[in-house]
Amino acid sequence: MIRSAAILGGGVIGAGWAARLIENGVDVTLFDPDSAAERKLSEVLANADRAYAKLTLAARGPKGGHRFAPSVAAACEGADLVVEAVPERLDVKRKVYAEAEAAAPADALFASSTSGILPSDLQAEMARPERLLVAHPFNPVYLLPLVEIVPGARTSPEAVERATALYAWLGMKPLVLRREIEAFVADRLMEALWREALWLVHDDVATTAEIDDAIRFGCGLRWAQMGTFQVFDIAGGEQGMRHFMAQFGPCLKWPWTKLMDTPEMDGALIEKIARQTEEQAAGRSFRELERIRDDNLIAVMQALKVNDWGAGETLAAYEKKLFDQGARKPPEDLSRPIRTMERRVPADWTDYNNHMNEARYLQCFGDATDAFMRIVGADADYIASGLSFFTVETHIRHLGEVKALEPIYAETQLLEGAGKKMRLFHWLRHADGRLLATGEHMLVHVSLETRAACEPAPAVAAKLAEIAALHAALPAPEGAGRAVGQPR
Amino acid sequence: MIRSAAILGGGVIGAGWAARLIENGVDVTLFDPDSAAERKLSEVLANADRAYAKLTLAARGPKGGHRFAPSVAAACEGADLVVEAVPERLDVKRKVYAEAEAAAPADALFASSTSGILPSDLQAEMARPERLLVAHPFNPVYLLPLVEIVPGARTSPEAVERATALYAWLGMKPLVLRREIEAFVADRLMEALWREALWLVHDDVATTAEIDDAIRFGCGLRWAQMGTFQVFDIAGGEQGMRHFMAQFGPCLKWPWTKLMDTPEMDGALIEKIARQTEEQAAGRSFRELERIRDDNLIAVMQALKVNDWGAGETLAAYEKKLFDQGARKPPEDLSRPIRTMERRVPADWTDYNNHMNEARYLQCFGDATDAFMRIVGADADYIASGLSFFTVETHIRHLGEVKALEPIYAETQLLEGAGKKMRLFHWLRHADGRLLATGEHMLVHVSLETRAACEPAPAVAAKLAEIAALHAALPAPEGAGRAVGQPR
Repeated sequence: MIRSAAILGGGVIGAGWAARLIENGVDVTLFDPDSAAERKLSEVLANADRAYAKLTLAARGPKGGHRFAPSVAAACEGADLVVEAVPERLDVKRKVYAEAEAAAPADALFASSTSGILPSDLQAEMARPERLLVAHPFNPVYLLPLVEIVPGARTSPEAVERATALYAWLGMKPLVLRREIEAFVADRLMEALWREALWLVHDDVATTAEIDDAIRFGCGLRWAQMGTFQVFDIAGGEQGMRHFMAQFGPCLKWPWTKLMDTPEMDGALIEKIARQTEEQAAGRSFRELERIRDDNLIAVMQALKVNDWGAGETLAAYEKKLFDQGARKPPEDLSRPIRTMERRVPADWTDYNNHMNEARYLQCFGDATDAFMRIVGADADYIASGLSFFTVETHIRHLGEVKALEPIYAETQLLEGAGKKMRLFHWLRHADGRLLATGEHMLVHVSLETRAACEPAPAVAAKLAEIAALHAALPAPEGAGRAVGQPR
Repeated sequence: MIRSAAILGGGVIGAGWAARLIENGVDVTLFDPDSAAERKLSEVLANADRAYAKLTLAARGPKGGHRFAPSVAAACEGADLVVEAVPERLDVKRKVYAEAEAAAPADALFASSTSGILPSDLQAEMARPERLLVAHPFNPVYLLPLVEIVPGARTSPEAVERATALYAWLGMKPLVLRREIEAFVADRLMEALWREALWLVHDDVATTAEIDDAIRFGCGLRWAQMGTFQVFDIAGGEQGMRHFMAQFGPCLKWPWTKLMDTPEMDGALIEKIARQTEEQAAGRSFRELERIRDDNLIAVMQALKVNDWGAGETLAAYEKKLFDQGARKPPEDLSRPIRTMERRVPADWTDYNNHMNEARYLQCFGDATDAFMRIVGADADYIASGLSFFTVETHIRHLGEVKALEPIYAETQLLEGAGKKMRLFHWLRHADGRLLATGEHMLVHVSLETRAACEPAPAVAAKLAEIAALHAALPAPEGAGRAVGQPR
């Protein structure tokens, strides 16, 4: 999609963009005059690395590189994408665009991370304003899918199209706004809630921790998967939204929120809120809290992926892209055991013994079996056509322990592949070569309609026969044919 | 905790309370003059049943019963808890309390579900006002953990204490407010966001679907696990909340939200919103949408449980209570194969073949092994002391398919239990008796410090020997000692 990006500004947002781009194979050049920028970026990249190891089991391509440039112009040379994430001042941003345009390729896309300045104002003094738009992300940028795409009056439809494709490719959910409005959509919603929350703290109705609990044990759980309108539509019962609005519409006129004013952000209020949020942190550092937040976001998105809904659907689409990329690799040498699985051990695969749980060994072998099935042509289309292989018997030797986030892989030898039968032998190894387990599996080819055994389709049978002939020349694996507890 | 509850009002909230109470073994008597109340309740109970089957794998006690009463008084007779969920009119609620107090036991707790009326106003005319408080839940009441507990001026501390214990026992997160305020805390936050969202639709900035996406792909994911303050504290970077407020505080004064007014809820706006939310539903019925929402909420809470955070912590505490209840069962007859596992197949345990994935068979056997370990005394304390059993070899025969939500159980026979070795044979069956799989497992007793084999503690060795002697009299299981692909 793109190969290189300039990132102007290395704060929370700029560093977050850098992490997302690098994790997706884009080379990043960053400019930030802050002397701590390199340290901060390396901390964000470490957290992002940790997060991506958990986010998806799909094999990812090589990461992009990163370097720092001494100026805006130096950062922008040769960049396919210019990401602006400098402070929220129109004059500062316009100055940065002038320097960037002088150095960047004529067709580079310009994306501002502004939270609220109108793109028409941002592009007003640009030489090529048609290529600028707002791409407003949300912290943590490397994990949260939402990005608001806001074109200005002079932005070209082609730039919007390029941006939409680019951010989807980066695993995001681009929301293209049809109308320019200060603060766009998401921040307006957040700010409305935030202002009310400030009043509640100001008036000592509740502490920051209590307000946060009111969110994360209630509406926050709902909003992770449906927005306020769909939630209320369901709450309206059988008559839906019309009933809900008839019932609760009048409350809007009641003094239920402090809608007429904002609290004075004086020193006393700032101190109160800062003190209360420090208490919530309970001594955890900001990077620790980031990791907790990231683990939770990943878990929530993975949970929604199971239901193919909302942010889970976005994650699934991203993974599909990664799997497809992996599938485009040239076919392997089929005369040796075939590499069928490669991943890091997800953190939640470990158990009370602090190592990968025994069931996950079989999950690895199951995934290796699936990959082998794809190699012989028993892929998603084949299964959709009503044919598949079912495992009928399994033997596992657990030979070594492996811990969370360690890299592992599987190799597979076909012991038998004729008629309805397919017998596989998998080795599961640590990336350092250490043997962790072996798995021997008898599969039977079935019709998904009758759930009974049947012959594979000719193409699958032929591919199986081809690999079986090649693997017949390999030595029989040590441990094949064993029963549990049998002497060596 | 309590045995019976009266529920006054069978709308979305009253029926939701009924479902949560019934799922937790409380008998419910409901009064609602609506002729459709029985049908509506049965639909809510069906959705709640479905949800609880997925929510937790812990065995639950018997469900409570339910019946309808012809009057408020008849519903309240003998009730430990009176749940008021009638329309939001102070006069209506006061009238209901008068009738309820005349019939209910003197020590029954009164809990109003009001979204915003002050408890001091609710209790003003009561004979025993000290027992009334607001317990404000959130839809779906049977799943969302948050309940705002708001005492009135005359509510006794003892009533607050009883309510807090009761709702925690029901698996909820009681948030006790220290100050009475109209609409309490959570609804004020939701209403502030909702008002802003209404303006965005009114002004055609965005559709309801776009606004919902701005929530569920962004801030909603964050708010499922941390509230607005902790999120912004982290967004502040190294200097935390103080930096965040210095940077974004001024925006509050900018025209970023429509803070000065609410839109006129006229027919045109109501129609526009109703039409747009209908489009979002894409032809799904309201009960279908409820099930999608419930599946997502369950998945999110279960995901957070893995991280022991927020709503996941609440779910874990609820499950621990259920497990503890189950653990109080008298020990089983050890001379026969021992029932070691019982559950429904979680929906996300199924794969592209639309049946329980092969790895989950080993998870079932692993859980059965864990249960057997607890029976011989190798429990959590034993493991914390540095000793455990590791599985070294496994043989599985997959003999039958099982689908999502079907009930299954495991029984276990000890084939060998002496010295460092423990060899187990598990049968996995459908509740209808159908054999789904067998598992044979060799385990070795280990020191968690050296990760090497060692002798079990004397008590564990003795219990193992006792069961080994009893099980030696049982016939050898069919399939024990098999290797993969071996002829029968």
